[in-house]
Amino acid sequence: MEQNKCSRMLPVQQVKIEDAFWKEKQRLVREEVIPYQWKALNDQISGAAPSFCMHNFRAAVHLNNRREQQKENFHPPVYSYRGFERLPENPGELKDEFYGFVFQDSDFYKWIEAVGYSLIQHPDAELEATADEAIEIVAAAQQPNGYLDTYYILNGQDQIFTNLRDFHELYCLGHLIEGAIAYYQATGKDRLLQVACRYADYAASKLGDGEGKKRGYPGHEIAEMALLQLYEVTGETRYLELSRFFINERGRRPYYFDSEHPEDIKPGDDSIRYSYHQAHLPVREQTEAVGHAVRAVYLYAGMAELARIDRDDSLLQACRTLWDSITQRKMYITGGIGGTHIGESFSFDYDLPSDTAYAETCASIGLIFFAGRMLQLEADAKYADVMETALYNGVLSGMALDGKSFFYVNPLAVDPVACHKDERKAHVQPVRQKWFGCACCPPNLARLIGSIGRYAYTASEDTLYLHLYIGSDLKLSTPEGEVHVQLRSHFPYNGTVSIRVSGEGAASGKWSLALRIPGWCREYKSCGISLDDARLENGYLYITRAWKEDEFLELDFVMNIRLMQSNPLVRETAGQIAVTRGPVVYCLEERDNGKNLHLLALSANAKAHIEPFSIEGEKFPAVVAIGWKETEEPDQAGRLYRTARSVEYEPVELKFVPYYTWANRGENEMTVWVRRRDS
Amino acid sequence: MEQNKCSRMLPVQQVKIEDAFWKEKQRLVREEVIPYQWKALNDQISGAAPSFCMHNFRAAVHLNNRREQQKENFHPPVYSYRGFERLPENPGELKDEFYGFVFQDSDFYKWIEAVGYSLIQHPDAELEATADEAIEIVAAAQQPNGYLDTYYILNGQDQIFTNLRDFHELYCLGHLIEGAIAYYQATGKDRLLQVACRYADYAASKLGDGEGKKRGYPGHEIAEMALLQLYEVTGETRYLELSRFFINERGRRPYYFDSEHPEDIKPGDDSIRYSYHQAHLPVREQTEAVGHAVRAVYLYAGMAELARIDRDDSLLQACRTLWDSITQRKMYITGGIGGTHIGESFSFDYDLPSDTAYAETCASIGLIFFAGRMLQLEADAKYADVMETALYNGVLSGMALDGKSFFYVNPLAVDPVACHKDERKAHVQPVRQKWFGCACCPPNLARLIGSIGRYAYTASEDTLYLHLYIGSDLKLSTPEGEVHVQLRSHFPYNGTVSIRVSGEGAASGKWSLALRIPGWCREYKSCGISLDDARLENGYLYITRAWKEDEFLELDFVMNIRLMQSNPLVRETAGQIAVTRGPVVYCLEERDNGKNLHLLALSANAKAHIEPFSIEGEKFPAVVAIGWKETEEPDQAGRLYRTARSVEYEPVELKFVPYYTWANRGENEMTVWVRRRDS
Repeated sequence: MEQNKCSRMLPVQQVKIEDAFWKEKQRLVREEVIPYQWKALNDQISGAAPSFCMHNFRAAVHLNNRREQQKENFHPPVYSYRGFERLPENPGELKDEFYGFVFQDSDFYKWIEAVGYSLIQHPDAELEATADEAIEIVAAAQQPNGYLDTYYILNGQDQIFTNLRDFHELYCLGHLIEGAIAYYQATGKDRLLQVACRYADYAASKLGDGEGKKRGYPGHEIAEMALLQLYEVTGETRYLELSRFFINERGRRPYYFDSEHPEDIKPGDDSIRYSYHQAHLPVREQTEAVGHAVRAVYLYAGMAELARIDRDDSLLQACRTLWDSITQRKMYITGGIGGTHIGESFSFDYDLPSDTAYAETCASIGLIFFAGRMLQLEADAKYADVMETALYNGVLSGMALDGKSFFYVNPLAVDPVACHKDERKAHVQPVRQKWFGCACCPPNLARLIGSIGRYAYTASEDTLYLHLYIGSDLKLSTPEGEVHVQLRSHFPYNGTVSIRVSGEGAASGKWSLALRIPGWCREYKSCGISLDDARLENGYLYITRAWKEDEFLELDFVMNIRLMQSNPLVRETAGQIAVTRGPVVYCLEERDNGKNLHLLALSANAKAHIEPFSIEGEKFPAVVAIGWKETEEPDQAGRLYRTARSVEYEPVELKFVPYYTWANRGENEMTVWVRRRDS
Repeated sequence: MEQNKCSRMLPVQQVKIEDAFWKEKQRLVREEVIPYQWKALNDQISGAAPSFCMHNFRAAVHLNNRREQQKENFHPPVYSYRGFERLPENPGELKDEFYGFVFQDSDFYKWIEAVGYSLIQHPDAELEATADEAIEIVAAAQQPNGYLDTYYILNGQDQIFTNLRDFHELYCLGHLIEGAIAYYQATGKDRLLQVACRYADYAASKLGDGEGKKRGYPGHEIAEMALLQLYEVTGETRYLELSRFFINERGRRPYYFDSEHPEDIKPGDDSIRYSYHQAHLPVREQTEAVGHAVRAVYLYAGMAELARIDRDDSLLQACRTLWDSITQRKMYITGGIGGTHIGESFSFDYDLPSDTAYAETCASIGLIFFAGRMLQLEADAKYADVMETALYNGVLSGMALDGKSFFYVNPLAVDPVACHKDERKAHVQPVRQKWFGCACCPPNLARLIGSIGRYAYTASEDTLYLHLYIGSDLKLSTPEGEVHVQLRSHFPYNGTVSIRVSGEGAASGKWSLALRIPGWCREYKSCGISLDDARLENGYLYITRAWKEDEFLELDFVMNIRLMQSNPLVRETAGQIAVTRGPVVYCLEERDNGKNLHLLALSANAKAHIEPFSIEGEKFPAVVAIGWKETEEPDQAGRLYRTARSVEYEPVELKFVPYYTWANRGENEMTVWVRRRDS
């Protein structure tokens, strides 16, 4: 690996979002999601499944206090409970016990991470005070030895780290670290960061390849990338070492998870296990993305980060192979991943059913994590293209336009009748829900939207990479002084981008701006700086020059309406067409096109144009195309089958709306893919 | 209801099969299925899930013997076991206990029914001796009070008839009756028939609307139609009354099943329950076919039979409505029913997925039972059309051409990769299996094939209806003497039918032959008797005349290749075409057409012709059509999605083989429906 080719994501506080589209999303997170989520963490939302998250922390604090007061007379709880979710006998009357899912602590960590990002963009003393108070509770729940997982604190600590496969202690550690870093970066306060370090230290003292340590690793990955971030923030190599251990040990024989769960093993059974956890093979031997999709991309993101830090070519190669496995054979056109709800998992190659898709919002978010880290390793626009696709489609579709309801599952075709009547589609909701008992997606959306600036740029010593064209003000410190970059755009609906480069550091010598030429863009032009000397490499246009102190360039990435087809090996969408424009995937809704969307058809050379439409006063561009509607009426005699006749089509205007805006106008049919009819 | 419009199915022994196609199927049943099944009942097949069926009967006999020997000192088993399936701790060492599924007794009853039919067509003293011996064991297992279900006999009789919803005691009674009647009709021996009557008498003494009786009815229907047959064979009205009670009581509020399972009821819950069992509403109020498909059509067959016996118009109307629900909205083109594996059930209207279909062999068999009984009520060819479609497609596909392996599930599209890798298709097998632990389909096939003559004809006082054109010799007794009908045909591949009418009774006055004009037939001609005076009504051609004693007529129902389309409301097959010829549905197999069948296309006006092909020396007609293959190669760069281009097609010969012959040449892709491309 040529280290000088590596670039780095920028700390989130260095990128100030100045973008109409994303400021609005961040406002929703700030005004809707964060306050709602705080209520949810405190079980104050009637009608929603309680989280019990803050209750559990408080109960742990009470236990700690009793220990302190009773000293020798204190009898700690003895581990007695192994359920994955525990509900109170009487919901109105909570005891000082653990309730909810085993991973419920992470609800707070995700919230505090979103709060951190929000405070960076939009300081808010009241919110910060609330957060500080909550952090004190969490800190007080921590054990003297640094351990911090309320499930085991409250149920008896003798079983700590005995079920890494299923019980999410290291998952909670990972989220704690990420939340603590965000809050530290936002406020400079390291109270929670210290808590995170102490829990990480505890984990490092019990897990790893040293004498007397367990050779365990997380059942649900995230600690890998979180520990690497903690290493970078603190400089403490023990966090790097623990992450490296987790990644290298994963999937080795004998399986660590077997030692935890000997009851699951049949004698003489030497078969591959734990592919659901991506722990079926050592990670460098994994060539196919398998198992739980969120876990998978969290792991791969960690692997990519470690590959960069360790300059580990074999790990990089594994990441490339897994990237291709996802993006060439297992990804929806929306950037959704996870073709099956069984295990919330990747299905087999090219199996991408539209109506039974899982395509969890969190999985697309994790794909962005993975893509962002691959971009650090190698500046190839293919990573940014997928990142952008996932962002504007499979991720954003997870949240209603008013920020008040959420999709967990993001299918590419929905018939509400099927959702209500067909148990095979029980996981598919035709309208977004307020909250979930297992509340991963809304807070994950909140933290991604809050930190979106991290994914817009990377920088190496001599190159600033522009990946996403999100309007923002960027400050980079160089030995020669600050570099300011002001980027303005109207993405995702308009491809014009203006960039102003200024600051002392900018004019200090030769360096490059590397502009991603989006994969969807067939034509781009510059107004201002000539691109004649620019070099195009792997989808990036490198403008290398001695910049002056205040320069301006404007690029127009022409956004044409594109009619797309899938690889012919995708059975589900063979003979079908999807509409995109720029990074946005469009879809048909019943609201605009009537019932029975499956009777509509489109030619590959259909004429199409943009027309505005609005939802609750907010304006969006729709793609209006001249297509066809099969006029065949159902048989009068009610026959299901009859001699095939020549099908009658009438020309109709098909109105496609941005996929992420669907289901904001009531329950109705939707489809991304439409039957192809070449006339 | 005009009773004189009703006709009757003929006793199976009056129809001697003389048909190359069906004699071969009956030979397979006789030489392969019945001997194999007998071994299975006795757990003599290594590698197959044991049935424990005969073991259970023997264990019950031993218990009876102990009771007899020990008299007052005998302590009967106390009911202690509620599992649905019980396996021995040590498979090599069976105790005198009940093993297997709760309904395992029915394995023998289905076997003896198939044996009965086989003996009618093909006497076999050795087989009959084996059957007689086995019947003695079953008879000896019966309790002094007539009760006979080894599950409760061996597990304690205090719980008899306490779980009618789930535990199949009345299902076993139904199969006992049907088996006993078949064996009685074949051999004249009434030993098992007496056993059946005694168990039915016991049931009638405990269930019904008399004083002190439980108002229960079967969780898995079949006793309804079986008891009606027993009534017709014995003339005992108590069997008619019990069946009528079962049918009329079903689905009434308060739900009987609630009284058995109060633990399942939430307080204040007044919602509709038991649609899985078709017990959600009184049967006359049911308008949609729902729930477990086999149970549903068994019930409907019983309802239709009772409607005929009772001249019950409201019941007939319910049957008509349910018939339309199935055949106009919930039936595959193969006559398969049950769109979802969840509950082995009907899905919602027009939801007929090809690759995740359930379409259980037994359900199509049950549809034939229903159709046959509707034909007795009203001579409308729509019933016979569906019966014929189910028979030659969804039913026959259940058995391999060598009679040695079976499909439980009959999908309309199979990708073996998906069957192996996608848990959503875990119920779909790409090749037939030898046997099943829950062995309903193979013996059900055996009894249907053995009794196929029953469905070929019905007769009223003055009309003989010809429904299926299966080569056979028919004898009818009339007051004026015997009528002989000899029918010869080469169905399902050739539409020429010859009919010879003879016998004294034939020439005794004016009567009608009613010949079904198949729904697939657009043109027919007669050689011999003129059809000028014939009357066409509801798909039947009535030839009414004073027949002479020896007359011959020949009809040719022209069998054209037909390209079919589905009702446009069927999303799954919108824009697709299926190939049929006569009653046979055809399909594409990978073996003949290469991989990736989804890339093939056909025009509605495609040229097609018949060509012979052979499997293991047996000859079949294939339909060869000029179609298209999408030549688009997967993207070189591996991209999943790209700009839609004009698709290149190359003309190819598509070879369609009869659907029921698929998967006889190894594991491979198959599809019934092919993409439509109108050029």
